Amino acid sequence: MNQHTTARLLITCPDRPGIVHAVSSFLFNHGANITALDQYATAAEGGTYFMRLEFQTPHLDLSRQVLAQTFAEAVAARYEMHWQISHAADRKRVVIMVSRHDHAMLELLWRWSRQALPCDIQAVISNHADLAADVQRFGVPFHHVVVSAERRDEAEARMQEIAAGADLLILARYMQILSPAWVDLWPQKIINIHHSFLPAFVGANPYQQAYDKGVKLIGATAHYVTAELDQGPIIEQGVARVSHRDDVDSLRSLGQDLERQVLARAVRWHLEDRIIVHGHKTIVFD
Amino acid sequence: MNQHTTARLLITCPDRPGIVHAVSSFLFNHGANITALDQYATAAEGGTYFMRLEFQTPHLDLSRQVLAQTFAEAVAARYEMHWQISHAADRKRVVIMVSRHDHAMLELLWRWSRQALPCDIQAVISNHADLAADVQRFGVPFHHVVVSAERRDEAEARMQEIAAGADLLILARYMQILSPAWVDLWPQKIINIHHSFLPAFVGANPYQQAYDKGVKLIGATAHYVTAELDQGPIIEQGVARVSHRDDVDSLRSLGQDLERQVLARAVRWHLEDRIIVHGHKTIVFD
Amino acid sequence: MNQHTTARLLITCPDRPGIVHAVSSFLFNHGANITALDQYATAAEGGTYFMRLEFQTPHLDLSRQVLAQTFAEAVAARYEMHWQISHAADRKRVVIMVSRHDHAMLELLWRWSRQALPCDIQAVISNHADLAADVQRFGVPFHHVVVSAERRDEAEARMQEIAAGADLLILARYMQILSPAWVDLWPQKIINIHHSFLPAFVGANPYQQAYDKGVKLIGATAHYVTAELDQGPIIEQGVARVSHRDDVDSLRSLGQDLERQVLARAVRWHLEDRIIVHGHKTIVFD
Amino acid sequence: MNQHTTARLLITCPDRPGIVHAVSSFLFNHGANITALDQYATAAEGGTYFMRLEFQTPHLDLSRQVLAQTFAEAVAARYEMHWQISHAADRKRVVIMVSRHDHAMLELLWRWSRQALPCDIQAVISNHADLAADVQRFGVPFHHVVVSAERRDEAEARMQEIAAGADLLILARYMQILSPAWVDLWPQKIINIHHSFLPAFVGANPYQQAYDKGVKLIGATAHYVTAELDQGPIIEQGVARVSHRDDVDSLRSLGQDLERQVLARAVRWHLEDRIIVHGHKTIVFD
Repeated sequence: MNQHTTARLLITCPDRPGIVHAVSSFLFNHGANITALDQYATAAEGGTYFMRLEFQTPHLDLSRQVLAQTFAEAVAARYEMHWQISHAADRKRVVIMVSRHDHAMLELLWRWSRQALPCDIQAVISNHADLAADVQRFGVPFHHVVVSAERRDEAEARMQEIAAGADLLILARYMQILSPAWVDLWPQKIINIHHSFLPAFVGANPYQQAYDKGVKLIGATAHYVTAELDQGPIIEQGVARVSHRDDVDSLRSLGQDLERQVLARAVRWHLEDRIIVHGHKTIVFD
Repeated sequence: MNQHTTARLLITCPDRPGIVHAVSSFLFNHGANITALDQYATAAEGGTYFMRLEFQTPHLDLSRQVLAQTFAEAVAARYEMHWQISHAADRKRVVIMVSRHDHAMLELLWRWSRQALPCDIQAVISNHADLAADVQRFGVPFHHVVVSAERRDEAEARMQEIAAGADLLILARYMQILSPAWVDLWPQKIINIHHSFLPAFVGANPYQQAYDKGVKLIGATAHYVTAELDQGPIIEQGVARVSHRDDVDSLRSLGQDLERQVLARAVRWHLEDRIIVHGHKTIVFD
Repeated sequence: MNQHTTARLLITCPDRPGIVHAVSSFLFNHGANITALDQYATAAEGGTYFMRLEFQTPHLDLSRQVLAQTFAEAVAARYEMHWQISHAADRKRVVIMVSRHDHAMLELLWRWSRQALPCDIQAVISNHADLAADVQRFGVPFHHVVVSAERRDEAEARMQEIAAGADLLILARYMQILSPAWVDLWPQKIINIHHSFLPAFVGANPYQQAYDKGVKLIGATAHYVTAELDQGPIIEQGVARVSHRDDVDSLRSLGQDLERQVLARAVRWHLEDRIIVHGHKTIVFD
Repeated sequence: MNQHTTARLLITCPDRPGIVHAVSSFLFNHGANITALDQYATAAEGGTYFMRLEFQTPHLDLSRQVLAQTFAEAVAARYEMHWQISHAADRKRVVIMVSRHDHAMLELLWRWSRQALPCDIQAVISNHADLAADVQRFGVPFHHVVVSAERRDEAEARMQEIAAGADLLILARYMQILSPAWVDLWPQKIINIHHSFLPAFVGANPYQQAYDKGVKLIGATAHYVTAELDQGPIIEQGVARVSHRDDVDSLRSLGQDLERQVLARAVRWHLEDRIIVHGHKTIVFD
């Protein structure tokens, strides 16, 4: 697939007959060739309808702007659609936030450096200085922003400055709690990796919690961040088998492998516009 | 989803712009509401295109026959489509063939008895008499058809008689090799469960082969049957972890659990018209 | 392995040097040949030590009774061991309790009927009459014991009568809550299958809870029953991948496959004396 | 567990009664405390017996050398044992060989750099210069050894020089075939990662082979290298689910994640003396 000419259309609307017809006719009539199409409705009738299309733009008879405007007027208004068109050529800008654990961040940087994550990483922000060299080696700016309970506002203002213009923030084991006000600035634009199989083991030290409970599988969960801790819409989850022989250290070690894989999948899906948030759940057209 | 009013359209054709538009317009204009849609193309341009649609028929303005005829003329001819429309209300007729191992057959009969496999099971054929009572308990006719090397033709003629009118044959551990001529009577209509991760361990005694090789995972493979042994298009595969502690018996026991699950998934997908065979591979819209 | 001559020794004791030496010397000196040995200690030093041995008895120089007595005096007392010796030839007696869902119970009965669960199933108890024929077909007595809120004591007394002499009760989707007093009569002798990945989704309708939460994996958990609902020691867990396309019905259907597998593994481990309960966790020597 | 005082004993011998007794008595009598013990016999009687013990050495009453000598005379000779004692404090020396794909090598270097692989990496050898900087960043010497068909002997002599004194060679996607003579210099000391689920897809381009076959799962296999290509004893395998949507590139991408995980597990097991080779199979006490 030529990524430079690929566009993606995400649609959410009340379900009713004729949507596929209307959208595909519109695209066909304007010279767009549909190369992928997924849809889902929450109910057989009267539910909410979701659609993801990929189409190729070389033979479009309209400019990007006019295409969007025309779609809004000719199709979206009629079906009361929430929608967005994005172009693969416009790489999303990403900021990674991290504390001291390097595994999740390095996995993202490494995949990005070998073109496996289609984005521009504009900065890494950390509340510790430890990982500066690891980040800079990839040619990515590293910002050390100290966070203290008394001056969280100041730190968040600084982070907001660094992240200005970003399309996505990734909390790759960022161990500070962000203020609800700050989170609200980035609706459905912050992905966190939580080191448990949510909703089990919310909060601090999930590997210790898993050990204490004696579970036989541990997990990791990537989710969008909302004001409520560890309660945002789940994007992806993974598990690994463990046994009584595992102590908290070996759970952590196995879990970090999960975290890397689960977060990388979730981020890729986001960058490829495969996720639609619906209420507190996600539709993932993977 | 109301199964009684659901129809499914499967399409294979050369890929070119406008197919979604043409199909969805046709259905919309005749009162069919699309409730599921999957598509796949083998290449960005110039490949083969595959589509599966589910649509609801209550508001159709044409009879089934006229709908098919009109689609053939108005759409399919123009795009050189191979296509089929099936109606969920027309339950597929199934014949299960089995030898002595009961696990795969019982799994199917049990799922069928609780409405988890949408089909009519018209008969079970076996080259042994052992499982007669197990089958009859489900209210399904059991036919014992002895197969000998000298009189295979006769046996196959008898099986053909019993299977007359069936839409699908399932080899649920049927341990006789069918003649190529007989297999040719049922193109893409015979599903076999092979007790290995194909293409590893083709042929007899795959659990013994796996043991001898010392693999750390064993598998099961559901595939369509073609004249060439264990080489037909793969529908589904599963694996389970094993270790040096497993002997051939325990591999078999673990493997039988896999066989049951893998075969049940493959059969359900076939019954729901989710599989398109393309060359010696399958497209599965699951 | 000749099951008729296999004995198993389970040991829990404070960890200190010399335990393997003491136990293996004792067995060797009395003519027992060790054919399996697992051990685990909760800490490098000063923890709790667990051991499971299988040994062959044909050349024992002591009767069963004298062997146990001698072991108690010569070894167990010195190391402050909790221990038990069981003989594979003494098949454990099992009672299954079930409500209306047949899947978990049928899986157990079917495995038992093909000698894959080494036990005697002495009865099935249900608070509904629905499954009587399914049970009786396996030659197992079925008891319908109605439970009402007002007369739970009476029902539990009746169940206690039926279960008299049993070594293990299995709640194969028994949807009544047992009184703490009754549960206390069967310490570490009741296995329940819970249809979620505990500790997520405790209590009623876990598939609905999983659907509402939007998880991407569902699970099943086999655990010993204690007085506190769904909080007993976890024996085994399994998960299956799901997506936004799954409704509560399909989660239930996928989950029932998990329940069957997870419960069957847990029960087999219990029957083979592979589980030691330690506090609210399990050691599983699988 | 204090790694500095941990020793490991691996034993292979004809199975007969009294081995556990003999070994544990020997260790106990000389002040060694057994902290892990695994055993396996290929048959109930008359098979081959395998054992792995971890013991703590602080209270040993013999030096390492005398311990080994005494064990050889007092125990090993009597039971015809093949055996080895290794000390965790003596970190194994490792040489990694790689071509152009960085993923498997980087995974190993990264895990090693965070103390997750207990070894010293003495060098990386490559037939290409591409990865020099990536390797040197970890403080590991990089050797570019060009291999040509005509002068393979010369190249192998050079590699032998670089690898002198190593305990383990890891082929982390080294795409040259080594001469049987060279392989024979490193018996059970070369681990390769093959990018398929062996024995399926031996040889070149396994992802292409998997794509052509239309499998629904792809795999990776870590094995010891023997003179026969891709036929050495299997140590570990992993699989990932794929579909008709995956092209060769996406199979490769998914497969590389598997390769990293599978190779890392196999290497760790080797470094911790958890693997015994028996014929063309492995016993893995993980």
